[in-house]
Amino acid sequence: MYNLLKGKKGLIFGALNDKSLAWKVAERAYEEGAEIVLTNTPVSIRFGEIQKLADKCNAVVIPADATSVKDLENLIDKAVEHLGGKLDFILHSVAMSLNVRKGRTYDNLDYGFLNKTLDISAISFHKLLQVAKKKDAINEWGSVVALSYVAAQRTLYRYNDMADAKAMLESIARSFGYIYGREKKIRVNTISQSPTLTTAGSGVKGIDGLMDFSERMSPLGNATADEFANFCIVMFSDLTKKITMQNIFHDGGFSSMGMSLRAMTVYNQALNNNPKEPDNYDE
Amino acid sequence: MYNLLKGKKGLIFGALNDKSLAWKVAERAYEEGAEIVLTNTPVSIRFGEIQKLADKCNAVVIPADATSVKDLENLIDKAVEHLGGKLDFILHSVAMSLNVRKGRTYDNLDYGFLNKTLDISAISFHKLLQVAKKKDAINEWGSVVALSYVAAQRTLYRYNDMADAKAMLESIARSFGYIYGREKKIRVNTISQSPTLTTAGSGVKGIDGLMDFSERMSPLGNATADEFANFCIVMFSDLTKKITMQNIFHDGGFSSMGMSLRAMTVYNQALNNNPKEPDNYDE
Amino acid sequence: MYNLLKGKKGLIFGALNDKSLAWKVAERAYEEGAEIVLTNTPVSIRFGEIQKLADKCNAVVIPADATSVKDLENLIDKAVEHLGGKLDFILHSVAMSLNVRKGRTYDNLDYGFLNKTLDISAISFHKLLQVAKKKDAINEWGSVVALSYVAAQRTLYRYNDMADAKAMLESIARSFGYIYGREKKIRVNTISQSPTLTTAGSGVKGIDGLMDFSERMSPLGNATADEFANFCIVMFSDLTKKITMQNIFHDGGFSSMGMSLRAMTVYNQALNNNPKEPDNYDE
Amino acid sequence: MYNLLKGKKGLIFGALNDKSLAWKVAERAYEEGAEIVLTNTPVSIRFGEIQKLADKCNAVVIPADATSVKDLENLIDKAVEHLGGKLDFILHSVAMSLNVRKGRTYDNLDYGFLNKTLDISAISFHKLLQVAKKKDAINEWGSVVALSYVAAQRTLYRYNDMADAKAMLESIARSFGYIYGREKKIRVNTISQSPTLTTAGSGVKGIDGLMDFSERMSPLGNATADEFANFCIVMFSDLTKKITMQNIFHDGGFSSMGMSLRAMTVYNQALNNNPKEPDNYDE
Repeated sequence: MYNLLKGKKGLIFGALNDKSLAWKVAERAYEEGAEIVLTNTPVSIRFGEIQKLADKCNAVVIPADATSVKDLENLIDKAVEHLGGKLDFILHSVAMSLNVRKGRTYDNLDYGFLNKTLDISAISFHKLLQVAKKKDAINEWGSVVALSYVAAQRTLYRYNDMADAKAMLESIARSFGYIYGREKKIRVNTISQSPTLTTAGSGVKGIDGLMDFSERMSPLGNATADEFANFCIVMFSDLTKKITMQNIFHDGGFSSMGMSLRAMTVYNQALNNNPKEPDNYDE
Repeated sequence: MYNLLKGKKGLIFGALNDKSLAWKVAERAYEEGAEIVLTNTPVSIRFGEIQKLADKCNAVVIPADATSVKDLENLIDKAVEHLGGKLDFILHSVAMSLNVRKGRTYDNLDYGFLNKTLDISAISFHKLLQVAKKKDAINEWGSVVALSYVAAQRTLYRYNDMADAKAMLESIARSFGYIYGREKKIRVNTISQSPTLTTAGSGVKGIDGLMDFSERMSPLGNATADEFANFCIVMFSDLTKKITMQNIFHDGGFSSMGMSLRAMTVYNQALNNNPKEPDNYDE
Repeated sequence: MYNLLKGKKGLIFGALNDKSLAWKVAERAYEEGAEIVLTNTPVSIRFGEIQKLADKCNAVVIPADATSVKDLENLIDKAVEHLGGKLDFILHSVAMSLNVRKGRTYDNLDYGFLNKTLDISAISFHKLLQVAKKKDAINEWGSVVALSYVAAQRTLYRYNDMADAKAMLESIARSFGYIYGREKKIRVNTISQSPTLTTAGSGVKGIDGLMDFSERMSPLGNATADEFANFCIVMFSDLTKKITMQNIFHDGGFSSMGMSLRAMTVYNQALNNNPKEPDNYDE
Repeated sequence: MYNLLKGKKGLIFGALNDKSLAWKVAERAYEEGAEIVLTNTPVSIRFGEIQKLADKCNAVVIPADATSVKDLENLIDKAVEHLGGKLDFILHSVAMSLNVRKGRTYDNLDYGFLNKTLDISAISFHKLLQVAKKKDAINEWGSVVALSYVAAQRTLYRYNDMADAKAMLESIARSFGYIYGREKKIRVNTISQSPTLTTAGSGVKGIDGLMDFSERMSPLGNATADEFANFCIVMFSDLTKKITMQNIFHDGGFSSMGMSLRAMTVYNQALNNNPKEPDNYDE
């Protein structure tokens, strides 16, 4: 609507279906004038609907396992070739925890799973940046954004080893942001987004209660996927050239709240009503 | 250039001359389609060149002492009247320390001066928000931004009582952001900007060395006034609707740096050269 | 019990009665071998029971209004004289908001009251440090601690202008900590304590619900006044000589929590039960 | 000297020689009345002098590779058996980066090395906590501390992948601190220590310049290993029972500094002297 990304070329990881944050970002980037390439794992491509998105955005889909340097090399080469030039922006929206999926609690982690969590959710971001830098595949003043969550700073029960992965992800944004900034003027940031009812999110047990709490704690309410996409566009645009190595909270104010009247009103209602203790901690 | 503020109405504090951050913001806001009102103290209006800016931006200048509730009430009334509707955005770029100006060190503060520092640099922001809210003068989803500096979090010698004022300013953004958000969906944020050679900044003793250090520490270099203006536009636009109660660093990465190779290279050069101690602490 | 403060001399602000944090600190400091001087305002001395504490701790009480430089000068002179030597530690536990007391909401502040809030709760700390430094009244490696609360970083409804005062207090600890450290090796820190049912705290409307929430969010529960006193002793001792300009959370883990299972269990109970909205925001 | 750890039993990782932080902690813990068990890898035991420390502290040395769950299980069993009871405190001071050692820059990481960095420097902490919890090997109100560095929050050139590992380490302290706190009242914290000239530290290229900068930035100067040990004792003692999930800066104030007059005086000297740019970034 504003032509904020006119003439820019981008690569977007992690669109599965129309609930995905990355899906919305792709749509908005296209609307704002960007040419884009989409990527996801072969499995996600098969089970999701990314081709529909590609059709809509006049984009191609290049499969890649983001934990594979080889796949990333191929992806970057193909993307640059397809777009006819270097990239201007990248969205990394890739995360998965087998410990969460398999119901392993944080005090009973499988360390093979933990390695996978880190590889998929954090190290893949480093691999992407390292491959892109080695191939000199991003234009000066390009912008790279990864998706984070407040759990990187504050513990939320059940978020499990994803918290540690997000903390590492934000650190990678700083560490690589320093190097990519000083040498190529490329900025690297994370956006810490409200919980969102994506396919990934909706699988988490107890997500409804947490989302309600988050909604009532945040003076502006939870940020939606559409709103996330708008802010991503801004971070890709030329209007945020000097922001780097930051984690920016896009969360309706949640991260700066200690307690809101709305959330406390709900809480007090239970309190006056003989509140329960948790049945157990096996979760 | 993007029509990001088309149809929006804004109020901008603190433009003195064409080096001012607020001056650049006004120019950019106008370019992006906003109608604006400018304000500053009567003295600043007399000694500065704000009328030139007003002419350029098709704006009026309404004098106001930002520490006077009465002046702010008059300003808000007149601005809304002149613009023919409620405000969509406000920039608060107002700060002054008599302790700094008069060369009082932080361990020899004049408490009357400190009260003025706080009133001008922090409390004025609360007064502005309180007056605007009482008059219901900002549209839903409006955006209010105040200018901050990393000294609010980390001590820089000679920044003196302005550090405490900026810490309070950022707290006011959170405290009022909660209330204005929950009731009117209005967001309140601060931008923590690189040191900039404005008329205000250039008066600070030793600013050159600090700016060089900041430049070499920041992987993207210091953010300029023009870049600040661009980011302000973004914060006023509809693309950042769910960001509130935040302090966002717009500083080329400085705030996330511990030590850069460029700054260390300079430092080491002196180190190999029999480095000096400060002559004294009387400053 | 450990002789951690053997031979040390200290000054303690803010003991009103045996619920006060400062009261416990005085008792513990005395137990640990310190000689102490107590101070509070004349009114608090009259209405509280500080003389009982003084008797118990073999201390004198010197009245002082912490916002009065003259009173502070007299206090420091008398304390040093009485103790027969310079101070080794000081506790600043002084805070009051007339806006809270008089029921003025944060969007309807009385600015005279706000000035008082800042003067009593934040600027008094600067005045104390400035007077002590001018009189060279603290020994090298001495330790100064002020009491803070998480509201300095995150907004809690109803905490009102005290949040801004605490943010400023923490900034003063940094700003003055830099100067006092470089010149006299004196450290200045704040402790951010759990909400505590002191006489001050118990007056805050809705404090019970908040304390329950805080208790269930914190994996170790809220920190008590006795536990606060223990940590204060540690911060006054020679075992923390290199900690300065910090705000340390002594809160059972609250500050690092996003959501706990215990708190969520209570919240969900209300959620399943047709939760209420706040009646109004007039508070 | 104070009997702060009288009757307590502890396990200390990471003592190599008398420059090690862990070495000093062991000595001080012993002085304060604790019974301790020491551990390190077989290689470090062979090449270091840990047996000398054990003799001095009346301790045994149990070899363990901290990345091996099996070794940790054996270690915990043997330690509890040897001490005749559960543990009260643990120090985790374990970190190593092959990327640093082999001179791989951060934009040219070997991902096998990165996995090792994470396993040794961060995941080992989780493994230790998980094994200890499964074996119920720590008494209620026990205390676990891991060693961190400011690089977890702010980028220092050459610190490389250790920054990401430390960020993850601090996250593990929060994540596991929540669980261990709620179920066993055990606290988990990290201490972010000044750079120290240990055998590990002294191998880092350019460490001298950085230590000088850090010394002049910190109003109290860099914290020494002896001072670190003192603070560790405090964190193990009963006087800090309600501190958990925190990262506490023990750094002479460095982390709260933006720029000091002493450091700037050195910097300015080079600045007036035609400062150099880095020769290259290949490091």
